[in-house]
Amino acid sequence: MSGIGVIATLRVQPGKEEAFEGVFAELAAAVRANEAGNSYYKLFRAAEAGVYKVMECYDDEAAVEAHRASDHFRTLGAKLGPCLAGAPQIETLSAA
Amino acid sequence: MSGIGVIATLRVQPGKEEAFEGVFAELAAAVRANEAGNSYYKLFRAAEAGVYKVMECYDDEAAVEAHRASDHFRTLGAKLGPCLAGAPQIETLSAA
Repeated sequence: MSGIGVIATLRVQPGKEEAFEGVFAELAAAVRANEAGNSYYKLFRAAEAGVYKVMECYDDEAAVEAHRASDHFRTLGAKLGPCLAGAPQIETLSAA
Repeated sequence: MSGIGVIATLRVQPGKEEAFEGVFAELAAAVRANEAGNSYYKLFRAAEAGVYKVMECYDDEAAVEAHRASDHFRTLGAKLGPCLAGAPQIETLSAA
């Protein structure tokens, strides 16, 4: 089976969790509405305070590139940036 | 939004990848067929050889418990065990 998985780990600054989650909800809705090549995109809170993980799945590499180049990812990603405490950590996987 | 996420990391013994993937495909099919409280259950290969990650999502804690207590998880899990190089590492998350 083809497919590309992504686990993105994001660390949010203390006090900015609510703002982060609000913008992320907009982003997730835009991904679902606009990206035919995305089959999963969901935000989770980790056990450590302020740490979030996004589970993502795409049909192929082109779908990953379409996600990163999309207007919604660029626009809403720019709003998420000021909430973060550092660069996102991205793990890329291949569907088995 | 409620929900519980799980990222399970599994290390498979060299040469047992194909057997592992075959049994896991049976397990994933059984989860989809039998677990109303599971909304995602997908196997991925990590960049490191022999390392796999399972992305999982459940409606609530009862659904996680139903998964672990299910006949298919116990039966097929017992077949996966001999393929593994160590105990699975389980990270539990809460949907944001």
